[in-house]
Amino acid sequence: MPLAQLYIGPGRTGEQKTALIESVTKAMKDVLGPLQQPVWVIINEVPLSDWGVDGKPVRPPQGRP
Amino acid sequence: MPLAQLYIGPGRTGEQKTALIESVTKAMKDVLGPLQQPVWVIINEVPLSDWGVDGKPVRPPQGRP
Amino acid sequence: MPLAQLYIGPGRTGEQKTALIESVTKAMKDVLGPLQQPVWVIINEVPLSDWGVDGKPVRPPQGRP
Amino acid sequence: MPLAQLYIGPGRTGEQKTALIESVTKAMKDVLGPLQQPVWVIINEVPLSDWGVDGKPVRPPQGRP
Amino acid sequence: MPLAQLYIGPGRTGEQKTALIESVTKAMKDVLGPLQQPVWVIINEVPLSDWGVDGKPVRPPQGRP
Amino acid sequence: MPLAQLYIGPGRTGEQKTALIESVTKAMKDVLGPLQQPVWVIINEVPLSDWGVDGKPVRPPQGRP
Repeated sequence: MPLAQLYIGPGRTGEQKTALIESVTKAMKDVLGPLQQPVWVIINEVPLSDWGVDGKPVRPPQGRP
Repeated sequence: MPLAQLYIGPGRTGEQKTALIESVTKAMKDVLGPLQQPVWVIINEVPLSDWGVDGKPVRPPQGRP
Repeated sequence: MPLAQLYIGPGRTGEQKTALIESVTKAMKDVLGPLQQPVWVIINEVPLSDWGVDGKPVRPPQGRP
Repeated sequence: MPLAQLYIGPGRTGEQKTALIESVTKAMKDVLGPLQQPVWVIINEVPLSDWGVDGKPVRPPQGRP
Repeated sequence: MPLAQLYIGPGRTGEQKTALIESVTKAMKDVLGPLQQPVWVIINEVPLSDWGVDGKPVRPPQGRP
Repeated sequence: MPLAQLYIGPGRTGEQKTALIESVTKAMKDVLGPLQQPVWVIINEVPLSDWGVDGKPVRPPQGRP
């Protein structure tokens, strides 16, 4: 407590995800102050063809020739 | 804003997902009217063996011979 | 199965929410075709001061005089 | 109705997931009593390198030599 | 780790929710065995007029005379 | 894109929530770099009696005498 469920695009390295966990955790602790429980962060990767903005996928699914 | 998190079964084509994004976005805009932000749609695919209804998976996991 | 978790702003009438459930369900069935389970839709209302876009709440929290 | 979204670590067998669906469903029905709708359970597997506790992933991502 | 996000109807007592947390936690531990982290359970209450099944709210919103 | 769904305890001021949106957004942009879409942050407040850790609510529900 608290919990951050993150949804990001694909293709990030393990190093970037580790840095993301660290920086979001720090951002929450900086604002919320001392907490009764550790911060949890869950990263969910979403393919860009499964992410719609304004009615269209961020990247169209790849066609097959 | 608004956001639709969709959970569907596996095996849909890219075309079907693009159509799903388009139709759900339209359905929301039809009802909610003009919005300050674009609609976001995130599609999450769930294996049928990880989806329980009334205590049983929709499709049992495949055994190994 | 499938499931739609909707996050919308506050202040919609019961009628609008009922219409939203109906239209999103129809949108999903139109694309996905016959389904083994009914569509579930859950509407979550989010105060505009709790919804951040690009680092700022969509509407700043109301001050106290 | 009700719905349980479960987030667990990777590597569970199909049998364990089936047992998880059964036991969580039973746990909910035992407490909530007769329900108008079946219980839904959705299992989401999260890689341990994508799960942060207190600022660090539960298991660091594997490096490359 | 693991995490259970529960969505239930309204009107449960504090005692029932405490029992729900206890029973779902036990159900997960029974199946998953010893865990690196404590189980987290988050209960989200959803008004029945905001929960759609098959295109209609479980309970229609209350009209005004 | 990306999206952060935050679950926090109750009782934070509007100012703290605004600061939380700002700091989490910055934390994500610092790591992820230039993005095609703005960061969205949604804050969900959870009563401490609805948040279970290791089988018990973080704060027991208030009894009635």
